[in-house]
Amino acid sequence: MIETPSLVDQYCHGVLRTELGLGTFEAHLSHTEGPPAPGTTLFDTQTGFAVRRWCPPLLGLEPHCAPARYLARRRELGVLASGRRLLRGSGITTYLVDTGLPGDLTEPGELACAGAAEAREIVRLELLAEQVADTSGTVESFLANLAESVHAAAANAVAFTSVAGVRHGLALAPEPPGPGEVRGAAGRWLAGRGVGGELSDPVLLRHLLWSAVASGLPLQLHAGLGAPGLRTDRTDPVLLTDFVRATAGLGTDLVLLHGYPYHRNAAHLAGVFPHVHVDCGAALVRTGARAATVLAEILELAPFGKILFSTGAQGLPELHVVGARLFREALGRVLGTWVDEGAWSLADAQRVAGMLASGNARRVYGLDQGT
Amino acid sequence: MIETPSLVDQYCHGVLRTELGLGTFEAHLSHTEGPPAPGTTLFDTQTGFAVRRWCPPLLGLEPHCAPARYLARRRELGVLASGRRLLRGSGITTYLVDTGLPGDLTEPGELACAGAAEAREIVRLELLAEQVADTSGTVESFLANLAESVHAAAANAVAFTSVAGVRHGLALAPEPPGPGEVRGAAGRWLAGRGVGGELSDPVLLRHLLWSAVASGLPLQLHAGLGAPGLRTDRTDPVLLTDFVRATAGLGTDLVLLHGYPYHRNAAHLAGVFPHVHVDCGAALVRTGARAATVLAEILELAPFGKILFSTGAQGLPELHVVGARLFREALGRVLGTWVDEGAWSLADAQRVAGMLASGNARRVYGLDQGT
Amino acid sequence: MIETPSLVDQYCHGVLRTELGLGTFEAHLSHTEGPPAPGTTLFDTQTGFAVRRWCPPLLGLEPHCAPARYLARRRELGVLASGRRLLRGSGITTYLVDTGLPGDLTEPGELACAGAAEAREIVRLELLAEQVADTSGTVESFLANLAESVHAAAANAVAFTSVAGVRHGLALAPEPPGPGEVRGAAGRWLAGRGVGGELSDPVLLRHLLWSAVASGLPLQLHAGLGAPGLRTDRTDPVLLTDFVRATAGLGTDLVLLHGYPYHRNAAHLAGVFPHVHVDCGAALVRTGARAATVLAEILELAPFGKILFSTGAQGLPELHVVGARLFREALGRVLGTWVDEGAWSLADAQRVAGMLASGNARRVYGLDQGT
Repeated sequence: MIETPSLVDQYCHGVLRTELGLGTFEAHLSHTEGPPAPGTTLFDTQTGFAVRRWCPPLLGLEPHCAPARYLARRRELGVLASGRRLLRGSGITTYLVDTGLPGDLTEPGELACAGAAEAREIVRLELLAEQVADTSGTVESFLANLAESVHAAAANAVAFTSVAGVRHGLALAPEPPGPGEVRGAAGRWLAGRGVGGELSDPVLLRHLLWSAVASGLPLQLHAGLGAPGLRTDRTDPVLLTDFVRATAGLGTDLVLLHGYPYHRNAAHLAGVFPHVHVDCGAALVRTGARAATVLAEILELAPFGKILFSTGAQGLPELHVVGARLFREALGRVLGTWVDEGAWSLADAQRVAGMLASGNARRVYGLDQGT
Repeated sequence: MIETPSLVDQYCHGVLRTELGLGTFEAHLSHTEGPPAPGTTLFDTQTGFAVRRWCPPLLGLEPHCAPARYLARRRELGVLASGRRLLRGSGITTYLVDTGLPGDLTEPGELACAGAAEAREIVRLELLAEQVADTSGTVESFLANLAESVHAAAANAVAFTSVAGVRHGLALAPEPPGPGEVRGAAGRWLAGRGVGGELSDPVLLRHLLWSAVASGLPLQLHAGLGAPGLRTDRTDPVLLTDFVRATAGLGTDLVLLHGYPYHRNAAHLAGVFPHVHVDCGAALVRTGARAATVLAEILELAPFGKILFSTGAQGLPELHVVGARLFREALGRVLGTWVDEGAWSLADAQRVAGMLASGNARRVYGLDQGT
Repeated sequence: MIETPSLVDQYCHGVLRTELGLGTFEAHLSHTEGPPAPGTTLFDTQTGFAVRRWCPPLLGLEPHCAPARYLARRRELGVLASGRRLLRGSGITTYLVDTGLPGDLTEPGELACAGAAEAREIVRLELLAEQVADTSGTVESFLANLAESVHAAAANAVAFTSVAGVRHGLALAPEPPGPGEVRGAAGRWLAGRGVGGELSDPVLLRHLLWSAVASGLPLQLHAGLGAPGLRTDRTDPVLLTDFVRATAGLGTDLVLLHGYPYHRNAAHLAGVFPHVHVDCGAALVRTGARAATVLAEILELAPFGKILFSTGAQGLPELHVVGARLFREALGRVLGTWVDEGAWSLADAQRVAGMLASGNARRVYGLDQGT
């Protein structure tokens, strides 16, 4: 009843280029610290069950078939052919791709080609700074090169993304750090790091956030369980409130990614502040059969024009499939129920479905403008 | 199946006396910091959709009609006639009205008259103190006049309400401040403020809370998203635990307003402490089609004798309608499902429905006693 | 459709040996600070309604009969006979019993006999330390006797349990305290305490936790609303993150009890750390008709091999019944719905039901090994 013909995945990563064995595939189903507990498997999770539901039919198998059987079929087809079948079966027509993860992952262009879709790049601020640090000799050259890199990235990318919450926690001082403060922090960081060293200094993280805000490009902020972090409560989006208030009216949109289990707080910020938007997809991949409820919780407070779909998928094209299918089914069920109950009109439900699936992302990221 | 013939709205405000254009009406649908984001409208929210569902039929239009059509019809009838139709269609028989908001809002008597209902006053502590400060010359006269005003208010009002959580956060020291501390804080506040200056000093906020507790009148505490505050997590009702414990056994009832998204914590306090009660209505206006779930979450831990309905409505009689209709429908659906599943008996469900709709409020606020 | 023939209750207490009047029975339905509010009763709670639903038929009465009628029938049968009927009607085949509560409660052996089931002991660390302190003259003898007692307990019990979160909060320093620190804290505690004095010193609480970890026995940690504590948010399991990380890879399993209303955080930890498991039962007794939803929230992030059933029942055999029945019904409804929707296969649902009901507990506590 509720159709979403086109899906813009506003946040995902590329897929692995190599053939995968059962153990490696399993490890990519979840973010864990350590291997599965003895006697358990990560296939026995909502994500694992969702993969077994949606993906086997795309490779010619029955739903819910055993993991070993699925992996054997996947290897039989080969990583390229199975990836193409999966991505093309996802229903995603545009991928916005965070290229800031390590590993042998496909670039946006490859993902577009495999998925017969469009793809655009999202630049991860912390990696950008680390790459600049690897090639800059002094504090002054680091800061100058960084400014230039942010400027150059802004010309090509559709958004910046920050994992400041994962690296440090979202309880950052809200205002931009002063130039002397930034120089001091940069000096200490550069002096102490080896090549590839990770950026987690709070002053530099804030400097990156404000550099991105100044660029005018939408800024995506990881919150909640988006990535394995030090402690979940330190990524509660409510901790961003003062930063959100400080960036109001500057013309830059903020997008809160993931959010779960604090997605009601993220939705609240999207309701209060004009420039804040909220992701409604990445949590669905983690919660599987519960996707409709999690989506409905986001739909409580967030204005419907501020909610954007994503898969948050990383490494496995199966996760792009699962994210897209769960979202479509959950959206259809939630909005369809409200129409059946008389709470919403069918016309409104169809309109809102289109906004969440692609319309809002097209507006926020300017996807219909020439680049 | 589950009937609630009479509704006591235990917390609301008056309605605007002036005709409203589309933009002003829209602005009253939500608490935001700033105008709607470009390309979005506050009608595309759960509150907006709920207004479009429930209110047009009361003005002779079809449900879900376009906002502009609804506003035209509203203006055609005029603010008085449309207000009367809406309020009388809400099913509310008693309004408890917080008169402490600025703006051209109807007084309790006018609201009662327009709604063909009863109305009683709730006195907002912070406004009372600000009004006393405006007319007191010295610290001593301020404190003496304040004590007298609280005493006088207690004789006429049904409850006090406090927005200490919005002004400062609920993490206040739990014990009453000493007289010297209060005098010092009053002196500093009076010296620094102009006429109408807001009270946010934590010592004076605590002094007000304890003055209200001493009066014996029920004290309503704003928690969660009830009003736009500095940061949502600072209004988590769990932060009130020590204050709740300090006021146990003194004979004064506490009522936690709103609560959402921390309503499970509010319900828990109502379960543990005999004098704590919890609001179950104001969150429904914000969450619309999700009202049944939010209500059910409150019904997890809160004893059924401690849960009170309200609309939290402010400015628009549409919000009184939506609050009442959503509550009635959600209550019927939640309790009806439990009866269908065999979890509750029908007799119990009907009894509990009456308690939430009006019985608990009548008991807590002594509404059946002569005044 | 979804069957759970055998239930292992991984955390409960014994039942009262004495006949109960209506008021005493009512007081055991809930953890409150103070008597029910005037005009209310603790029977008007989810727990009260669940007891009235499930227990009267086991004593030959109709469901939902009035509390006084139920209590009269219970006294007519006598505490022993009614207890036997109730426990044997619960479907629980193995009870793991925390013997660390005061009061005239049945021992594991008696519970096993009354319930025609097996029972094993869980040792409460804080009580163990208090008992050792009662009989130790010096700091040195206290610490030596404590080490010996933990060692001896580990040989007979199936698990240790800790209420550190209730006594102090879960925000404990994650690493083991040094020997000098422990001696100092023990000296101060022993000097200040009378016989039976409660242990709440954070250094000693941590020493107990690490002693338990060293024993290799599973360690159950109270979190969320499991027991009346100082403030609920201080028992959020997210506060355990650093302790969890510090104990990873040591070979000792951790089990997070209760969790609600922070059960999504508990489930997340079980998803990230191989040695963390999560309770899914005790919250159901508190939330009654909402049990299916609360269970489903735990099933969002927790791997299915890491979720364990318990009743958390204490004092009343009615609570064992209610815990078991609510769990079975909720599990059947939640997994059955997912099968109906095509999200899960029936075979997977049946397998997962068996894991939650007993299989996971058998593995974690080694219940199938000879002892």
